[in-house]
Amino acid sequence: MKESTPRPRLIGLDWGTTGLRAYLMGEGGRVLESRERPWGIRHLPAGGFDAALDGIVADWPDLPVLASGMVGSRGGWREVPYVELPATIDAVVVALGSVDSVSGRRVHLVPGLRNTVVADVMRGEETEIFGALALQPVLAGRSALLLPGTHSKWVNVLHGRVVDFATAMTGELYTALRHHSILGAGLGKDDPPFDQDAFLRGAQSARDSGAGGALSRLFSSRALVLTGELALPAVPDYLSGLLIGEELRSAIAAGRVNTSTPLQLIGNPVLCRRYAVAASCFELGMALPPRGAAALGLWQIARAAGLMPESGQVGRS
Amino acid sequence: MKESTPRPRLIGLDWGTTGLRAYLMGEGGRVLESRERPWGIRHLPAGGFDAALDGIVADWPDLPVLASGMVGSRGGWREVPYVELPATIDAVVVALGSVDSVSGRRVHLVPGLRNTVVADVMRGEETEIFGALALQPVLAGRSALLLPGTHSKWVNVLHGRVVDFATAMTGELYTALRHHSILGAGLGKDDPPFDQDAFLRGAQSARDSGAGGALSRLFSSRALVLTGELALPAVPDYLSGLLIGEELRSAIAAGRVNTSTPLQLIGNPVLCRRYAVAASCFELGMALPPRGAAALGLWQIARAAGLMPESGQVGRS
Repeated sequence: MKESTPRPRLIGLDWGTTGLRAYLMGEGGRVLESRERPWGIRHLPAGGFDAALDGIVADWPDLPVLASGMVGSRGGWREVPYVELPATIDAVVVALGSVDSVSGRRVHLVPGLRNTVVADVMRGEETEIFGALALQPVLAGRSALLLPGTHSKWVNVLHGRVVDFATAMTGELYTALRHHSILGAGLGKDDPPFDQDAFLRGAQSARDSGAGGALSRLFSSRALVLTGELALPAVPDYLSGLLIGEELRSAIAAGRVNTSTPLQLIGNPVLCRRYAVAASCFELGMALPPRGAAALGLWQIARAAGLMPESGQVGRS
Repeated sequence: MKESTPRPRLIGLDWGTTGLRAYLMGEGGRVLESRERPWGIRHLPAGGFDAALDGIVADWPDLPVLASGMVGSRGGWREVPYVELPATIDAVVVALGSVDSVSGRRVHLVPGLRNTVVADVMRGEETEIFGALALQPVLAGRSALLLPGTHSKWVNVLHGRVVDFATAMTGELYTALRHHSILGAGLGKDDPPFDQDAFLRGAQSARDSGAGGALSRLFSSRALVLTGELALPAVPDYLSGLLIGEELRSAIAAGRVNTSTPLQLIGNPVLCRRYAVAASCFELGMALPPRGAAALGLWQIARAAGLMPESGQVGRS
């Protein structure tokens, strides 16, 4: 009996503010094909959400569709209310929303999570988290996770539940300061190649800022240039190190992590590496990210929601 | 003997990045007339520095001209090297630069100050500081000064010298986040009238952030809106309170001020009031700013430099 081509079971969409990714998945969440388009919810093609969906799943079979991310936000296709902490995957499944496309596809939408103790929200990261817990079940018991990005999420998991999280706007702060403040003066639009020395220098300055915090040192990115102590092309990575370093300093000072508990990184490998480099200044251990958390999270949620008919049934149809 | 019209003695220019102010001054630094134009060094009229100077001093008598601020920076009319700390007014006088305009006026330029212990620089504020010390001589002995702004300066004075200072980019950070991040989403370009409750709420949140610092709470400006706990029009002042509060929290945590030493505010009265309101959350005393520090600082420096002939000589000419 020869091995057959895996049968597609689910279309998963990771649909954020700036981009759209689609996964055609087979049994167990195996990604058979993936596609990426620049059609984030603020950058939709003509025809809007419907056109974006039809465009990215073109020629894929008619399968259940599950989407996570900003597509379910107020400014998205349809708003799906947040699930409050502590949140299990089952609570997320119960709160799934849906919207029907003009072409007749039903798109199920993953809700975001809401922290009511300190006002905070996430959309999309919950899916990556449940994917990471499936990839590395040891994390489900008790773990501290870090999902770096435009809006970094610091997450605590206990017994399979997301019990706490906090957002640091580090990525967006970097972009705002780099491109819309004096700190970027004289620099071109594109960042030069990664300058690890400048990055570490920034991270160390954040660490050394102590309880005062690195906000008081932002202007040093400029002053060091004016006084000839920092080369202009080194500014972006110095600033990046200062801001990521501040994110780490702040999390340690606030007791969100301690240096004896390694932090599990989840997300973009290049950005995660940057965080791991900064962590070395703080003697903070970070585990590099597992691959495929977002897609597997979609699979896990879809399976728990019963969106796919059981394998046996599929065979019979 | 009737009182004569005061004789003009000096033209002082406060020439920054975004604006230009000119003072026609009589004996003792008394301002006889002042003018303001939007001709900052990045917003010069056609004809550049020469045209801006000729335009703003038009029909004023031919007098010594002294200018402070970014006009003496690398991107200004002529760069004047910084004076290193600790800095007296005499050290500033020795380091004055000058440039001659096409129309034949010599413009003397006040140098900025440079902190070499922690890389930092100022240009323009040194003049306001020396003006404030002349207005309130009690400050010269030992004082802590705060000049809020795009780039706030925290300054320590001892025996008439500027012995230390640090910059907080609070104003520029506010603008970058308000206009170039998700925090300003849905808001118009103009800020609504001052919402003191929202401002205080932000300042208190910064205070309560403790050693973690308020950078970790930036996203709350957005999350509180999404969860219905903050009205959208309240966001600008909540954010302003959070950032100014963080500036104060950080300065206290870093030992830059202590709650037993009142801080002397210098500068824009509206902005200074905002700082005084935030200070009430920290039980930190702040003295409201004296008027006319910038103009009087120019007078003090010009007099120490001997730019004006002595009064007696003027009478004889």
